[in-house]
Amino acid sequence: MAKEIERKFLVKGDGWRNMGVGGVYRQGYISTQKAVTVRVRIANDRGYLTIKSPSVNCSRSEFEYEIPLADAQEMLDTLCDRPLIEKVRYKVKLGDLTWEIDEFDGDNKGLIVAEVELSDVNQQIELPEWIGEEVSHESRYFNSNLARFPFSKW
Amino acid sequence: MAKEIERKFLVKGDGWRNMGVGGVYRQGYISTQKAVTVRVRIANDRGYLTIKSPSVNCSRSEFEYEIPLADAQEMLDTLCDRPLIEKVRYKVKLGDLTWEIDEFDGDNKGLIVAEVELSDVNQQIELPEWIGEEVSHESRYFNSNLARFPFSKW
Repeated sequence: MAKEIERKFLVKGDGWRNMGVGGVYRQGYISTQKAVTVRVRIANDRGYLTIKSPSVNCSRSEFEYEIPLADAQEMLDTLCDRPLIEKVRYKVKLGDLTWEIDEFDGDNKGLIVAEVELSDVNQQIELPEWIGEEVSHESRYFNSNLARFPFSKW
Repeated sequence: MAKEIERKFLVKGDGWRNMGVGGVYRQGYISTQKAVTVRVRIANDRGYLTIKSPSVNCSRSEFEYEIPLADAQEMLDTLCDRPLIEKVRYKVKLGDLTWEIDEFDGDNKGLIVAEVELSDVNQQIELPEWIGEEVSHESRYFNSNLARFPFSKW
């Protein structure tokens, strides 16, 4: 189990492009009744099953397991809600921080957000010039919610 | 991914006792909106995370992964619905078949069911004398439902 503490921002401009390599992500959610999320993800050619607790003050528990790619594919195809989340994730390392910039495709095309994982909720961070508004607490930006109410429907 | 085809029966009498060894099971469910189940199980001292598709004609897809015991413990404690399912599972081998007899405890105390896994939905099987009424299609006997509406509340 890992503790995930992260902040999320909108991205403005293209200053971040060419600063990192992009990987293709495709993921879906098994819809749950409470705020626990059950995510199936294919990142490049690897499959993962991830359970996350509800987020409290930017922090949540995360249980992630690598699973066979074929299992992930079948769960995405048969058990996960539609639409699936399709995105290219760019990892940009700046100082001690790694920014993960998600450029969405499919029903969320047009949306670009940047996430940064912190070691402490109160950690001070320097924001690159291409970082826009913070949306850490806006639940519609949660990937699990983008799978239900995608950006194209906002 | 495994295909699970199984039938379930009530158990009558004690003729099955001493025919197999019992293992202690403790499991819970992350409540889902549809008939997909997300189960966390501790069987003796091992942890498992299992996703099952809805059951159609006694058959369903099952995706099961062994996970660290401490992860299973924490998910049971913090993310799964109450009550948890507590039971002792006895495995009884008779001919080609393995009967799994679940003697429930906790909020389901008093309930004993036997499951048998088949290789084909139409497979003919011989029923031991301690097998009672078939409940394969009675959803209240699904473990995921026993975790919501336990036997003691029927």
